Amino acid sequence: MPDPAKLTRRSLLVGIGAAGGAGAMYAAMGVLGLAPSPAADPLPRTGGAAGPAPYVPPGRSDFTLRGGRPAKVLVLGAGVAGLACAYELGKAGYDCTVLEARDRIGGRSLTLRGGDTVTELPVSWNGSASPGTADSPERRQVRFGPGTYFNAGPARIAQWMVTLDYCRELGVPLEVFVNSNSSAYVLTSGMRAPVRMRTARADAYGYISELLAKATDAGALDARLTKADQELLLDFLSHFGEIGPAHTYTGGERRGYRVDPGVTAGSALGRPPELAEVLSQGLGRMLTMDAGYEQAMPMFQPIGGMDAIVRALAGRVGAERIRTGTRVTRITNRPSGVEVELDGGAVLTADYCVAALPPHVLTRVRTNLGADVHSALATPIPMAAGKLGLEYGRRWWELEDRVYGGATETDLEIGHIWYPSHDYHTERGLVVGYYNTGPHAEAYDAMPHRDRVRRALGHGARVHGAKYRKDVLDAVTISWRRQPHIEGAWVRWPSTSGLSLLQRPAGRVYFAGDWLTHLIAWQAGALESARKVVTDLHHRVLKEG
Amino acid sequence: MPDPAKLTRRSLLVGIGAAGGAGAMYAAMGVLGLAPSPAADPLPRTGGAAGPAPYVPPGRSDFTLRGGRPAKVLVLGAGVAGLACAYELGKAGYDCTVLEARDRIGGRSLTLRGGDTVTELPVSWNGSASPGTADSPERRQVRFGPGTYFNAGPARIAQWMVTLDYCRELGVPLEVFVNSNSSAYVLTSGMRAPVRMRTARADAYGYISELLAKATDAGALDARLTKADQELLLDFLSHFGEIGPAHTYTGGERRGYRVDPGVTAGSALGRPPELAEVLSQGLGRMLTMDAGYEQAMPMFQPIGGMDAIVRALAGRVGAERIRTGTRVTRITNRPSGVEVELDGGAVLTADYCVAALPPHVLTRVRTNLGADVHSALATPIPMAAGKLGLEYGRRWWELEDRVYGGATETDLEIGHIWYPSHDYHTERGLVVGYYNTGPHAEAYDAMPHRDRVRRALGHGARVHGAKYRKDVLDAVTISWRRQPHIEGAWVRWPSTSGLSLLQRPAGRVYFAGDWLTHLIAWQAGALESARKVVTDLHHRVLKEG
Repeated sequence: MPDPAKLTRRSLLVGIGAAGGAGAMYAAMGVLGLAPSPAADPLPRTGGAAGPAPYVPPGRSDFTLRGGRPAKVLVLGAGVAGLACAYELGKAGYDCTVLEARDRIGGRSLTLRGGDTVTELPVSWNGSASPGTADSPERRQVRFGPGTYFNAGPARIAQWMVTLDYCRELGVPLEVFVNSNSSAYVLTSGMRAPVRMRTARADAYGYISELLAKATDAGALDARLTKADQELLLDFLSHFGEIGPAHTYTGGERRGYRVDPGVTAGSALGRPPELAEVLSQGLGRMLTMDAGYEQAMPMFQPIGGMDAIVRALAGRVGAERIRTGTRVTRITNRPSGVEVELDGGAVLTADYCVAALPPHVLTRVRTNLGADVHSALATPIPMAAGKLGLEYGRRWWELEDRVYGGATETDLEIGHIWYPSHDYHTERGLVVGYYNTGPHAEAYDAMPHRDRVRRALGHGARVHGAKYRKDVLDAVTISWRRQPHIEGAWVRWPSTSGLSLLQRPAGRVYFAGDWLTHLIAWQAGALESARKVVTDLHHRVLKEG
Repeated sequence: MPDPAKLTRRSLLVGIGAAGGAGAMYAAMGVLGLAPSPAADPLPRTGGAAGPAPYVPPGRSDFTLRGGRPAKVLVLGAGVAGLACAYELGKAGYDCTVLEARDRIGGRSLTLRGGDTVTELPVSWNGSASPGTADSPERRQVRFGPGTYFNAGPARIAQWMVTLDYCRELGVPLEVFVNSNSSAYVLTSGMRAPVRMRTARADAYGYISELLAKATDAGALDARLTKADQELLLDFLSHFGEIGPAHTYTGGERRGYRVDPGVTAGSALGRPPELAEVLSQGLGRMLTMDAGYEQAMPMFQPIGGMDAIVRALAGRVGAERIRTGTRVTRITNRPSGVEVELDGGAVLTADYCVAALPPHVLTRVRTNLGADVHSALATPIPMAAGKLGLEYGRRWWELEDRVYGGATETDLEIGHIWYPSHDYHTERGLVVGYYNTGPHAEAYDAMPHRDRVRRALGHGARVHGAKYRKDVLDAVTISWRRQPHIEGAWVRWPSTSGLSLLQRPAGRVYFAGDWLTHLIAWQAGALESARKVVTDLHHRVLKEG
């Protein structure tokens, strides 16, 4: 769920792999059969390096063959990583117990429905006091109607991600998440009014093609391209930019229509703005948002809400093995096992422990894992992100704006507006009124709920007009830094020192989560991390007996 | 369903509106309140011309107020246009009967399932002999498994099309039709091997940006753009093409990965081909296919098959009012009514008739509509298009290629390969193995079924390898020019003389169909035409009583 306009894995995970460390690690894992799921391109048209070995889940039969026995494992955290660890280990008969501090499973994979409560830590929260004491947290009831849901955390899955494999294995049905819609709008601070994505795209492609075609005509590419290649380029540009034989962009049907064609030819939107105006709009990022590997269309969502995945995982793990409302206060590595102390003083023991908590929360748990581990856990910085779910009683975006799913992209404080990718043509619908990150999210974190909604409705009305404020049945905001026991949307590694340390176990304690991968902020990261941990742990158990 | 690489409304309907005739007609209709559905841009950001009056369906109350009475109407053809006419007129109490020559309703909106039969006219068919005599037609049984369907005709709906309004009104649930998939492939005769759409797109954007940025650096745009605007352009290009500070395209993550990122950073596809190679691929059209107004993402399909729309229309019309297997041989306009003679000699009478047949079929019906009308009906030329539905027992495109819906675009004789946009992760799935038009479709028209399949499998294997030939459970081809009583995928108007004549009634006979609109080959055209006809007819009945 990272903001595509702001973050990429590379900017999140500075330097990983750059020094060849990851490559070396990867090669070693491949040799050992410990490498994560391949999802390698089945048609590697350039070159032919083989991908890593596919993921082989731990199986009961492994023990029969190799004389070991399943071990007892305590999994800390019932988010995607923790549940996936318990699910995968459970397949081989491991005796897993999942301890979750929150009163519900799923972690950030949070789908809110009518009857749910959203609790936020106080603005002044610094980790030292328990929520509910002084400066008490905000609690709000969600009052959505039946069928309405709000994916407050992750909301979309790319085709290549391992998350889809889990959907298949767990029988979670999918539908398309419309991540990009030609009929939705763009609005940047360089623009006076919103423009439909199709129109902005047509104008950008058109002017780029005109400029390059005319430069070609003027001989500017003579040193670079043969005449024959220049002809190929001009042919490409004539299609790409809808420019005519004169190589001038004057608009075309791609811009859209004021009155759609039908019995009549309709009425086209007409001539584009001047080139200088198009350039001033600053749309470079927005028009290629969906060219990114993580964001390209089509994307997918589970039918009925993203939490279908964590509910399916929990169902396979078994409710009796998952203890919610159970906060861990101490983790002690012993030579022959692990002791985990709970809030209240009870102590649980196991052969192994998987700590699938956010690192910044884990640093507050007392451990004997050593200064290096503690220092590594303290390195990643929790980041801010927030969302607003607006339930409307009328799908005005479909009825009046002819926008079926997808996103309006802005550089305003609201970031994006998302329209629902499901239940088209029904009565109610949930619009994501903001999805912001970085400084905008930090500012929203500090606001009370009412202010967030008021500001977001104001910005949304700049795109959609007065109807945006009407027919709102309920509004639910979430600030991920203020979510109890989570306290961040995802993390950023300011330096990668410590990452590889935490990808290995500390004694009998393993670490799992998206924050240990190159897919930070994606469920796929949590799942890939879980696969690595259970593979490592299982090989160790098989070896040590 | 036109081939976006080959046809646009403009090329189909040469000259319509160019001489202002359509504009004048449109203006006149607006004044009379007879114009079709607006679907005008709700945010006309440029200019502010008002759209036409919205469509008002005929209503029973109209008669109460204005003293007329519903009339008896014979509708010829139970395709989308005919059924929509009967549905709309039926709302106001008109006594409609729909006569359909085929043994099923829907016309080209044909969804094939197990148990259906596909009959093809003989290759030598010229309209003079009845099917089933000499050179008898091919008949093939469809043997798809339960749940598999093949939209052999229209398969996708754009957001702005009136077709969606009918889906809403009729309660036909929708899902996204993936019309463009970054993970699918492109393969042109200029390419040695297929490349994923994302890779081709990244390389095209990258090199275009490099060329234009370097031309800018060299001063080629100094006469056109201020230095400040050049900076804005360079900023745009840096995002648009993923080019670095040196303004050189060297590839990036948008190209894709050989091994996806996960616990490791993965392994990127690496450097792009040389610029000359990219230019030789000839991808201009294919990379902007989804920029077209008719083709832009997201598009939609009814859940369970396109024929959900015609079945819903027919349900509202009433089965007792629809006579299939009923061929019309003569239409006679009388001063006070219309006589319609059926194959076999029976004669039906009514106040009005709506001829919702393809014009090239209608010309073979004897009429007294006059030489001008006959000449106009003989003007549009039926066009060829064909499709192949391949039912596979295993969704290898999802499992192995990580392609979830969408299309592979080629300039081979197969045109496109479509992957199913529904029932992801289930066992069986239907791939459209070709969707061709123009000369390729004409060539396939002349082939027996087996040859079409054999050739298409060969071309598909060039994209997907040997697995493309495996696990095929059934293969169904359709040649629209060989479909009885349809005899064409859609029409082309070589000149538009006669079109406006047929948009008006000939006495008591009205004409309806996509072929009378600027949305040829789209169900939306048939629906818009139907709305115009029923509006015209209703106003006349109200006036004439």
